[in-house]
Amino acid sequence: MIDYRRLRVALLGAGAVGSQVAALLLKHGDELADRAGAGLELAGIAVRDVDAPRATDLPRELFTTDAETLIVGSDIVIELMGGIEPARSYLLLALRSGADVVTANKALLATHGPELFDAADQVGAQVYYEAAAAGAIPIIRPLRDSLAGDRVNRIMGIVNGTTNYILDRMDTEGADFGDVLAQAQALGYAEADPTADVDGYDAAQKAAILASLAFHTTVPLEAVYREGIRDVDAGIIESARRAGYVVKLLAVCERMNGATGESISVRVYPALIDRGHPLASVHGANNAVFVEAEAAGSLMFYGAGAGGVQTASAVLGDLVSAARRHVAGGVGVGESTYANLPVVEIGRVTTRYQITLEVDDQTGVLATIAGILSEGNVSIATVEQTPTMPPIADASTSPAAGQGTGRARLVIGTHKAVERDLSETVERLAASDVVERVVSVLRVEAD
Amino acid sequence: MIDYRRLRVALLGAGAVGSQVAALLLKHGDELADRAGAGLELAGIAVRDVDAPRATDLPRELFTTDAETLIVGSDIVIELMGGIEPARSYLLLALRSGADVVTANKALLATHGPELFDAADQVGAQVYYEAAAAGAIPIIRPLRDSLAGDRVNRIMGIVNGTTNYILDRMDTEGADFGDVLAQAQALGYAEADPTADVDGYDAAQKAAILASLAFHTTVPLEAVYREGIRDVDAGIIESARRAGYVVKLLAVCERMNGATGESISVRVYPALIDRGHPLASVHGANNAVFVEAEAAGSLMFYGAGAGGVQTASAVLGDLVSAARRHVAGGVGVGESTYANLPVVEIGRVTTRYQITLEVDDQTGVLATIAGILSEGNVSIATVEQTPTMPPIADASTSPAAGQGTGRARLVIGTHKAVERDLSETVERLAASDVVERVVSVLRVEAD
Repeated sequence: MIDYRRLRVALLGAGAVGSQVAALLLKHGDELADRAGAGLELAGIAVRDVDAPRATDLPRELFTTDAETLIVGSDIVIELMGGIEPARSYLLLALRSGADVVTANKALLATHGPELFDAADQVGAQVYYEAAAAGAIPIIRPLRDSLAGDRVNRIMGIVNGTTNYILDRMDTEGADFGDVLAQAQALGYAEADPTADVDGYDAAQKAAILASLAFHTTVPLEAVYREGIRDVDAGIIESARRAGYVVKLLAVCERMNGATGESISVRVYPALIDRGHPLASVHGANNAVFVEAEAAGSLMFYGAGAGGVQTASAVLGDLVSAARRHVAGGVGVGESTYANLPVVEIGRVTTRYQITLEVDDQTGVLATIAGILSEGNVSIATVEQTPTMPPIADASTSPAAGQGTGRARLVIGTHKAVERDLSETVERLAASDVVERVVSVLRVEAD
Repeated sequence: MIDYRRLRVALLGAGAVGSQVAALLLKHGDELADRAGAGLELAGIAVRDVDAPRATDLPRELFTTDAETLIVGSDIVIELMGGIEPARSYLLLALRSGADVVTANKALLATHGPELFDAADQVGAQVYYEAAAAGAIPIIRPLRDSLAGDRVNRIMGIVNGTTNYILDRMDTEGADFGDVLAQAQALGYAEADPTADVDGYDAAQKAAILASLAFHTTVPLEAVYREGIRDVDAGIIESARRAGYVVKLLAVCERMNGATGESISVRVYPALIDRGHPLASVHGANNAVFVEAEAAGSLMFYGAGAGGVQTASAVLGDLVSAARRHVAGGVGVGESTYANLPVVEIGRVTTRYQITLEVDDQTGVLATIAGILSEGNVSIATVEQTPTMPPIADASTSPAAGQGTGRARLVIGTHKAVERDLSETVERLAASDVVERVVSVLRVEAD
């Protein structure tokens, strides 16, 4: 094992996200060190009550109520407390003492982002906040870096999972808002006080963050127009459906060109989206951000918008980025090939298959074929006999050639099988007396 | 204007992507300087023939055939020549002379990536290659940085636009491979020699790059299993459709756990995808990369996979990133708010609307309503009269209350209108004698 320089990491908060971050950091510490080029030592977790019950099992000695001492002694500070104070003061203290900070706090960034970025600039530190805009979906780096040479014209985002879950259920079940909200609350998809979600406050904070970054402009939260989804009833959803639309709570950040020059609009409201648009296919509690840029054209980023472990992924990505910058200015480490896993040959891959055969339509044929598959360690999931069709070549000479000749087409779906077993089995099928022709063998992925 | 430190940028190659990069760099130079915190001076464009015809109009004095001299005098070198040599030698020369390099050359990275990364590490330089994996889709930074704290288990990518275009046309039109390929060639979607695309070589190069990054493992191009789409005929597509699948050329990079530890598989082939999967909705020449990670769950990145100007967006994003690192170690500049565009209030926003009204079902009502809309500067795109429905409250007391009362429901789709005009118009509609009730007013986005 390489003897890396060790960086001290302070964690503020141990809620749903914080406890996952701590657990993953302890579990995958060695692997993260390889990626960062630095050891990541969890120096402590600042909480209000050391003895409060936690979602995950963490060593009690990590907890402290003395956040200031923890912060001042750390290289990187991760803030997952939420709310404005004391999160703001703690992050300013961290930045002023030279630490890089990682935060998922959208309320804080939407209201005090410029103050934090200024404080970071003054000491050459960095604020990382990938988890603040759309949970685990990487959207900050694409906007900040990948599209830095382009001009973003519009962002349309489904950035609140709770409201998307509610609207999606209303759309698929014809249910009314109140009923679905109650269900969502019972299932833990919505909070007991759902105001932040259903009235669009959460989406408005994210819209302010995305617009600031996309348009290089300070967007105060008050400048974001906001409507929630409480007035969306079953009738509206049904009438949208009849017109070919689906209703989504949308965060729209738009560049506008007027007589007096360029301006932007940032707004959150329930909107009608054509069912053919990629955003219309974002179901359940998922999020997606659709970006239109001058040169890149249309891009979409899709994934889980919330959830403790999903958000923890974004936080840990930021932590590794911050660590890389500490040790090497971020150079090169990303491409390191420390893992060097063996690349297996195709024969050892397992996947599902669809085998299409043209067979003699006789008693016992299926039993013969099933026997060959079974001997080859290929397990059958589905079999379908489709109407017999003559081969195209035959059809041109004699239209009825394939009909009534006692041939049938079998489509066999397999369970997962090893590629080598499968290809040997197909060879034996092809050689079998009852098989006229192997029409196709295709692998099934992404099902 | 701020007097930035100026960085010398060398461009190698002036083909479809190179000429767009040069044109955009000259056009948006000031804006890119603000984002980078450094002036970006196009020092020259190295080509084989200075007088060859180009897609865009560029000053002749920029062109040179002396690539070496141009490279050695530059801070950042952008390589868009393609092919292995002399691209490889030029990039090694650039790195050894301390320049950062930007490249879209997937063939070179898939075969000589480790050599380039090592050369960069030795001098503390950086290789940027966002444009090499999926055109304008930001996938390198998400894999390298955003997911650096997570474990990627699987990547499934539609990473070749030509083959996706061909398979999509075959799927929607029932056409055969040869016919669609000929059409694609006529339209410029496929090359005269389509081997690199249809036989999966291009996708295999991208798969090697993605797998190397995702699994921190050197993946030689020879280790990528590869099948193309030449054998996919109309019958296969049709039979896939009947089974609820669509055929896509898929690049699969997969982590495998076996008795002897972890390994990976990297493979490219036409595969069946369930029509409900997000990858099934990727149409035309678009690309998408679906990533499954341990903590983040499922993510998808979608956009244009190729095209000169789209790829130029990714190249310029890399250029700005490289420039930021030169001047400030990449700190802070991404959040700069130099643009400070005004944020307009909602009243000045223009969008399309759907207005649903309950009206008296009398002669002349539509004329009255159309008159109110027209006076309010709201132009009608569509009007639909839907079957009259009683209000739900009425229905519970008297099921027939709404029927035969001479009421109808009008759904009006508008052209783009100014929000303030629209809301004033809706107020006047609500006050009109012929309107019983304004049922809903919804904005239409993303159509």
